[in-house]
Amino acid sequence: MSEVHVTRRARLRERCEAQGGPAGAALITLPANIRYLTGCAPAGPAALLLTPEPRDVLLGSPDTTAAVTDESLRGSVLPVTRGDPAAAAGELAAGAGVDTLAVEEHHLTVARHRALADAAPRLRLTGLACAVEQQRLVKDEEEISALRVSAEMTDHALGELLESILVGRTERHLALELERRLIDHGAEGPAFPTSVATGSHAGIPGHRPTDRRVEEGDFLSVCLGARYRGYRCQIGRTFVIGTAPATWQIELYDLVFAAQRAGREALTPGTEYRAVDRATRHVLDAAGYSDALDPSTGHGVGLEFREDPRLCPDAMGKLDACVPVTVEPGVHLPGRGGVRIDDTLVVRPQADGGPELLTITTKELLAL
Amino acid sequence: MSEVHVTRRARLRERCEAQGGPAGAALITLPANIRYLTGCAPAGPAALLLTPEPRDVLLGSPDTTAAVTDESLRGSVLPVTRGDPAAAAGELAAGAGVDTLAVEEHHLTVARHRALADAAPRLRLTGLACAVEQQRLVKDEEEISALRVSAEMTDHALGELLESILVGRTERHLALELERRLIDHGAEGPAFPTSVATGSHAGIPGHRPTDRRVEEGDFLSVCLGARYRGYRCQIGRTFVIGTAPATWQIELYDLVFAAQRAGREALTPGTEYRAVDRATRHVLDAAGYSDALDPSTGHGVGLEFREDPRLCPDAMGKLDACVPVTVEPGVHLPGRGGVRIDDTLVVRPQADGGPELLTITTKELLAL
Repeated sequence: MSEVHVTRRARLRERCEAQGGPAGAALITLPANIRYLTGCAPAGPAALLLTPEPRDVLLGSPDTTAAVTDESLRGSVLPVTRGDPAAAAGELAAGAGVDTLAVEEHHLTVARHRALADAAPRLRLTGLACAVEQQRLVKDEEEISALRVSAEMTDHALGELLESILVGRTERHLALELERRLIDHGAEGPAFPTSVATGSHAGIPGHRPTDRRVEEGDFLSVCLGARYRGYRCQIGRTFVIGTAPATWQIELYDLVFAAQRAGREALTPGTEYRAVDRATRHVLDAAGYSDALDPSTGHGVGLEFREDPRLCPDAMGKLDACVPVTVEPGVHLPGRGGVRIDDTLVVRPQADGGPELLTITTKELLAL
Repeated sequence: MSEVHVTRRARLRERCEAQGGPAGAALITLPANIRYLTGCAPAGPAALLLTPEPRDVLLGSPDTTAAVTDESLRGSVLPVTRGDPAAAAGELAAGAGVDTLAVEEHHLTVARHRALADAAPRLRLTGLACAVEQQRLVKDEEEISALRVSAEMTDHALGELLESILVGRTERHLALELERRLIDHGAEGPAFPTSVATGSHAGIPGHRPTDRRVEEGDFLSVCLGARYRGYRCQIGRTFVIGTAPATWQIELYDLVFAAQRAGREALTPGTEYRAVDRATRHVLDAAGYSDALDPSTGHGVGLEFREDPRLCPDAMGKLDACVPVTVEPGVHLPGRGGVRIDDTLVVRPQADGGPELLTITTKELLAL
């Protein structure tokens, strides 16, 4: 893994040098960005200093620095037991002759930024913007493999649940059981809080499980994902409880399914983010559900559960190959319930067979 | 609950007026602080604007503003679907004739602070420091009741686990089972990630459960807590697996127990935070374990899992009555394991019977 991280840091350094000149350096504090660049998931506040020299230093709690496995960083870790690692990094940079330091202003608080400025008053602080997040957008094959494993675990956990008796069990219990099964299959944990929604709750995005029990005739929607090596996928499915779905349930399901398929089929390199959202949204809009819709119909996944790109009407940018995203439309009818269908896919050129579906659990409407 | 929140906001407003003058206002963005002042747990970024008028406004996602149950805030919520609620609050304050706005610089990022300044350029931004956290330090009886319930749930969950077979099960599974039991007993969820550590892992603070299985002769240390109405307690216990503990296990356990008792007995109103830490730490130091010790031996609990006060050597301040804290010394011997014993207690005057122990599971060394 070391080499991967060295390469990633080199790419970021080039970018910083292009912006900050020969005496510019960058300070990374966002945990997922530190993990991407070092392989180390920080325990508590941490800071990665990239200097042009190049000599990169990871500063953090003794727990963080002790957990570094990246050979290239061994000997370049600095345990900080008192005060802010970002401030300590500032002192270090100033001492090394750095004159400009680009920081993650979307992550550093005003107070931490001030502590850094106070610790290194001669250092000019600029913004790194979301340079690391942009670099994280397109995944390498190692990252996609991790996502593939996380999707397999998720499919298994969901498949097992479907074989068990559901009627009479609460949303909370089903969510916990799904999380236990994820771990049984080797996940580090859930990628995000597992959502189980039944009856009138079904179809609410990000519904937090309650003590409501599954009943005959309910829509049941679940949304879960495994975390594997830090990578997080997402699957969402909706089922009907009982022997046969009602007509309105079949119609609503077919509609959301058609919207989700339209979104999946729009996932080609070069397509605008907003065009993918429009493809999905148009189907639901045309059926008169524009008011019931979420602000976005999908998002990127990776070391964070929700990352760029956002698939929504005002998103700027175009899809690249090897970008994993979710396509997750849903409709919720207050008092009645609703449907959500979420998949995680990797954008691939048509020549390579088009989008790669990672979450392969069936999307037929199952009556359980 | 409404009245409680109105009173809390009034107290904070008085403090702000004392500092910011008649045209000063405060902007609260830290989620636990918003919950303390409104009863509403924000979904996503949110901002609570306290103006001297007094007219308080809660800004946040439609999910957040829809969840407001506080009567006194009804009609004073503003759903924000685009951009930062903090920036929207700044515009609102400027429009209402506010000239100084105190913000939570330890929570707002540099980028959000700039968005706020850009949205309301004539507003003078100052720091609120940790005014709300300071107000949260001493709990009212309603808060202590919530902590008491959370401790009961935690004791029950732990008690049930001790009645089951432990040998052969993994740390991960035991942690999940504890979390399931917390929810069975009515908890909203775990107060923090449940830690289960066996064998050589036992006694490591905040150990993340692995696939290591419980074996005969192991020390097994667990640390868990329930979340109830947002309030979080903590209990930690260490057990021995098998028929009888080894001599070194008994000795180490007795030592940590003595340290923990010394800490508990030091919990009287007026005692310095550092004196409580010293009482605990001294016992372990005197036995030669100074290197194996954590930087702190306890902390406050409430709406956040770790809050003020910190019980550590450089903490400034003195205990008040009605402050709930943990006392949680531990010793970990690399390669062998170790012992942790954690309780949550409420500081009470001697006249009222001294510290109130919330987590009542036995601290005898049990062989399971």
